[in-house]
Amino acid sequence: MGVDTPKVGIVMGSDSDLKVMQEAVNALKEFGIVSEMIVCSAHRTPERAARYAETAEARGLEVIIAGAGLAAHLPGVIAAFTTLPVIGVPLQSGALQGWDSLLAIAQMPPGVPVATVAVNGAKNAGLLAVQILGGKYPELRAQFAAYKQKMAEQVMAKDALLGEPRPVF
Amino acid sequence: MGVDTPKVGIVMGSDSDLKVMQEAVNALKEFGIVSEMIVCSAHRTPERAARYAETAEARGLEVIIAGAGLAAHLPGVIAAFTTLPVIGVPLQSGALQGWDSLLAIAQMPPGVPVATVAVNGAKNAGLLAVQILGGKYPELRAQFAAYKQKMAEQVMAKDALLGEPRPVF
Amino acid sequence: MGVDTPKVGIVMGSDSDLKVMQEAVNALKEFGIVSEMIVCSAHRTPERAARYAETAEARGLEVIIAGAGLAAHLPGVIAAFTTLPVIGVPLQSGALQGWDSLLAIAQMPPGVPVATVAVNGAKNAGLLAVQILGGKYPELRAQFAAYKQKMAEQVMAKDALLGEPRPVF
Amino acid sequence: MGVDTPKVGIVMGSDSDLKVMQEAVNALKEFGIVSEMIVCSAHRTPERAARYAETAEARGLEVIIAGAGLAAHLPGVIAAFTTLPVIGVPLQSGALQGWDSLLAIAQMPPGVPVATVAVNGAKNAGLLAVQILGGKYPELRAQFAAYKQKMAEQVMAKDALLGEPRPVF
Amino acid sequence: MGVDTPKVGIVMGSDSDLKVMQEAVNALKEFGIVSEMIVCSAHRTPERAARYAETAEARGLEVIIAGAGLAAHLPGVIAAFTTLPVIGVPLQSGALQGWDSLLAIAQMPPGVPVATVAVNGAKNAGLLAVQILGGKYPELRAQFAAYKQKMAEQVMAKDALLGEPRPVF
Amino acid sequence: MGVDTPKVGIVMGSDSDLKVMQEAVNALKEFGIVSEMIVCSAHRTPERAARYAETAEARGLEVIIAGAGLAAHLPGVIAAFTTLPVIGVPLQSGALQGWDSLLAIAQMPPGVPVATVAVNGAKNAGLLAVQILGGKYPELRAQFAAYKQKMAEQVMAKDALLGEPRPVF
Amino acid sequence: MGVDTPKVGIVMGSDSDLKVMQEAVNALKEFGIVSEMIVCSAHRTPERAARYAETAEARGLEVIIAGAGLAAHLPGVIAAFTTLPVIGVPLQSGALQGWDSLLAIAQMPPGVPVATVAVNGAKNAGLLAVQILGGKYPELRAQFAAYKQKMAEQVMAKDALLGEPRPVF
Amino acid sequence: MGVDTPKVGIVMGSDSDLKVMQEAVNALKEFGIVSEMIVCSAHRTPERAARYAETAEARGLEVIIAGAGLAAHLPGVIAAFTTLPVIGVPLQSGALQGWDSLLAIAQMPPGVPVATVAVNGAKNAGLLAVQILGGKYPELRAQFAAYKQKMAEQVMAKDALLGEPRPVF
Repeated sequence: MGVDTPKVGIVMGSDSDLKVMQEAVNALKEFGIVSEMIVCSAHRTPERAARYAETAEARGLEVIIAGAGLAAHLPGVIAAFTTLPVIGVPLQSGALQGWDSLLAIAQMPPGVPVATVAVNGAKNAGLLAVQILGGKYPELRAQFAAYKQKMAEQVMAKDALLGEPRPVF
Repeated sequence: MGVDTPKVGIVMGSDSDLKVMQEAVNALKEFGIVSEMIVCSAHRTPERAARYAETAEARGLEVIIAGAGLAAHLPGVIAAFTTLPVIGVPLQSGALQGWDSLLAIAQMPPGVPVATVAVNGAKNAGLLAVQILGGKYPELRAQFAAYKQKMAEQVMAKDALLGEPRPVF
Repeated sequence: MGVDTPKVGIVMGSDSDLKVMQEAVNALKEFGIVSEMIVCSAHRTPERAARYAETAEARGLEVIIAGAGLAAHLPGVIAAFTTLPVIGVPLQSGALQGWDSLLAIAQMPPGVPVATVAVNGAKNAGLLAVQILGGKYPELRAQFAAYKQKMAEQVMAKDALLGEPRPVF
Repeated sequence: MGVDTPKVGIVMGSDSDLKVMQEAVNALKEFGIVSEMIVCSAHRTPERAARYAETAEARGLEVIIAGAGLAAHLPGVIAAFTTLPVIGVPLQSGALQGWDSLLAIAQMPPGVPVATVAVNGAKNAGLLAVQILGGKYPELRAQFAAYKQKMAEQVMAKDALLGEPRPVF
Repeated sequence: MGVDTPKVGIVMGSDSDLKVMQEAVNALKEFGIVSEMIVCSAHRTPERAARYAETAEARGLEVIIAGAGLAAHLPGVIAAFTTLPVIGVPLQSGALQGWDSLLAIAQMPPGVPVATVAVNGAKNAGLLAVQILGGKYPELRAQFAAYKQKMAEQVMAKDALLGEPRPVF
Repeated sequence: MGVDTPKVGIVMGSDSDLKVMQEAVNALKEFGIVSEMIVCSAHRTPERAARYAETAEARGLEVIIAGAGLAAHLPGVIAAFTTLPVIGVPLQSGALQGWDSLLAIAQMPPGVPVATVAVNGAKNAGLLAVQILGGKYPELRAQFAAYKQKMAEQVMAKDALLGEPRPVF
Repeated sequence: MGVDTPKVGIVMGSDSDLKVMQEAVNALKEFGIVSEMIVCSAHRTPERAARYAETAEARGLEVIIAGAGLAAHLPGVIAAFTTLPVIGVPLQSGALQGWDSLLAIAQMPPGVPVATVAVNGAKNAGLLAVQILGGKYPELRAQFAAYKQKMAEQVMAKDALLGEPRPVF
Repeated sequence: MGVDTPKVGIVMGSDSDLKVMQEAVNALKEFGIVSEMIVCSAHRTPERAARYAETAEARGLEVIIAGAGLAAHLPGVIAAFTTLPVIGVPLQSGALQGWDSLLAIAQMPPGVPVATVAVNGAKNAGLLAVQILGGKYPELRAQFAAYKQKMAEQVMAKDALLGEPRPVF
């Protein structure tokens, strides 16, 4: 990919979402993908959210990740204003613990999809962005295969820490 | 109130919502309140939704009722672009039967309220609009009191249809 | 609005609800709106709740905000006895964490609406009351527009605190 | 018990609840217990509901059964105004299919109990009333034991209709 | 009632339920009602549970309160073996926080009612038992009326602690 | 296995459960396993349910499948009275559509397990019984492997019915 | 894109899912994107599912859409065996109406993302695949912008069908 | 059973599940049953999971217990590759607290059963394995009967700790 321009935009409705959403940044970094991050609310700065989405493609973004809690409209609002793929991260917040944000993101009506990940699943949002970018940047496919291999090894390393006898198969 | 200008705007994301949302129109009509109705989607015509909300007050609207199903963002999007009170009607649609729209409307984050009614509660949305308008148009207070009285009589008429013996109290 | 008479009555079923409901008071104060607060239970002091609601309009109240947890009947009981708009705040309490109060408030039957906000959404209840009062007191519309502007600026200030590079759009 | 005065009052919020609530009447009849039935809404005829509850004991009622759907406040409102035991029947209605009425009845706050039965469980409400009356009218205990015996026989009769071989134990 | 024999049996599946179930004992004590308490599991000591229920009436009990968590079968099992009214207390325990016990108690099938109270609602279970006993022991009716009066006064005392100005109505 | 004695007992609380539970019988038949079926209610014939479970092992049963709806106690009650493995089938019935029976069966407390299958999953209950019996009757392991192979072929046959082009891999 | 090789693989667990999943095919067709469709079960043909996923990239697929109901494991299993982006479609089936499949797809653990759409949201799955392919095939971006424009016009056409007076804004 | 070869394989998706799953090991140990434990992920090491399941029977395992959280596919994936009975333990993890894993395990489609226990019910998984093994190793039946007796005594010991007067029945 070569250049340093952000390929992925990460939007969150509030700075209290930063800690979770940082996991998306980190996941992207593991693949050398630069991302940009903004705080932008679907309800408190709706025009800015629209403008961010409308200008995203022209500014070089190829995927947008949006995280929001409660009645989580941000990913859908972003998706309304762009043709880029939008990944939605339902955030756990408030009394209903993410059930509200999960439904408010996953249940998008026909015509305007949002690629939803698990509640607080920002890391997977980053990884999904990598997989999406892999279409255009095939080197990411190989990197992702290696990443999967590394994850498998980590699982097996944890397995090896369990006491004897170990099943051999 | 005198004039014929719509005081209440009724917005819905799809014409399939018309049957339910008509109950809001009817409720308003009982009080002589003119409403206007538009189909406008938070996701498919987002700019139009924004413009509708932004211009609502200047065009004479005093309350907006927005109905939506699934990941029901319309009421929240409308509320983001106006200072008028916005009433949200979660619509029963899709596999989750209104649980999604109820949460996507009721759980609005701090700063941008939506007055949520029951799933498919368009009639109550209309009545709530009447109560809100009653602040400025006090004749509506009296009308609403009469409406409550009429409802009570209807309940008692239904009660009277039950067979003897009737409790006297 | 000039005078110091409370325009908004804030009712809660128990003094344990005070901390959350205070946010409604605070939101109203930001707009110079005086509110009164009472502890009054739908089940333990039902006649007092009825009388409070019945006398509310005559005493100068224009909106009532009622907060309750569990099988949260207080907002509905208040609404049964007044023609004023009633805002219901479902409170998070007990094992079911607000799912019970949300449904017990939002799902009001046709004829007696309650304007429901999010679980623990007392701040939004206050803001919704401001929007409702804005119909009669137009200066509140301008104040609310300024409030929205301030919220937007706060979001952007938080955004600015994120590290470089900042997207320009 | 001898006389024909109703011992059990059956209250429902709407005549659309009649079909389900009739099962309570029928259950009581099997034990020779006279009941009275009224349509009375917690929200549309709140004073009548209060008066019904307040006068219930003096008029000879010993148990009240209240059925309601949606944000089902009726049983709780009745319970607020009487010291008689109140049985609540959550009714299946609207989009949420009884989840709302179940929670709005079962989750009553401390101090004002409602004896909740299953969604649409009007028959069990009637039977529970019989069990409660059995404290004062001991002949009902024997009748209930016979009723249980009859139910057991019905189950075994259905069992006998299954084909051979029948387990012997 | 005069004598000291327990009128109410309180059964719980595990001694970990004791803290919550003690609130039922306390509520009964306020009315001078003696209760007995046993730990008895529907699944681990099923015969003992059956025998307890079967002998309850003969031993002088008039109401049984049964508390259980998780797949809470105890109240239903007790109810299967007695004609006394059985009150079920769903207990909050495990990952599902009482949703499981609430449904496993409230949704009893036709023929075998359990009077369900709120999750962890042991206090209300005690009060409901008082109301049920009031049929046979009318002095409890007067006591309960006084209890309601005291609750109302407590609410009003808490209300009085809120700062000035106090609404007068 | 040779003989014709039932190895699996299938218990249901009501004959209305027969249609679904028959799928368990059918699944067992495919493996030549004889089952017996009884209607027996945890609440209406509790002693019979207990006796059935207590005598099951001595009568030659090796697995018990119990299906129940609503507050589905039958599988747990059976499990309380036997050391045989008990498979529970939550049945879809009533307003809550199986959520109640799923939780009332799956959430069994420590000490008394019930092997829960899906709501209405009687076929899988039968298959699970086959797998359990496979420990003692190893020929069932081979039969089950063949059954799995047949299922795979059915899936592939359905796949082949889709139009061209078919992916080759 | 030019050639006729399928770019998107559409996998479903059962041919009963065909009707819903066809909407994904149709959505892709609107953009001239060829897809292939197979019936392949995560549980009944697990090796085939794995092989399909493992060979997908080499056979020219760039996105996989997997639809499944109940304990919907298919999308996750596919995602485990490929580095391509996988879109999961929870299907409404069985007693729990899609709640199970939604959670079983959306709540994927860290490391293996699935891009989840709404219950029965196959059309959006197709559109999301188009957006993903747009990274490599930029002509799809323009096509998608036109598609969005067409959707907006459809909304406005439906709006125009509502009676006069129409709001002008 | 005599030998020391593991009869039960315990698989978990992550070493963070170890604490809960250890309860299964402990339950088995009480019956002298040797188990083996591995960390193996359905999504990160899918081939290893498949191979583990495929080779389980040949290596002498007779039951497999699989625990997983979130979109818990591991038990189903294991079941897809073996004819041994598979017990699934939904683990409480993430924002949805085990609702996701419960549904993702219990709602297995027809053909591939998983014996589901309660959320975090690893102890019961171990006990269920004992009951299953009891078919082949009848001495376990007697042991389980003794275990049940011991549990009953523990309940009664806890009961005895409650203060006087103790009911005698």
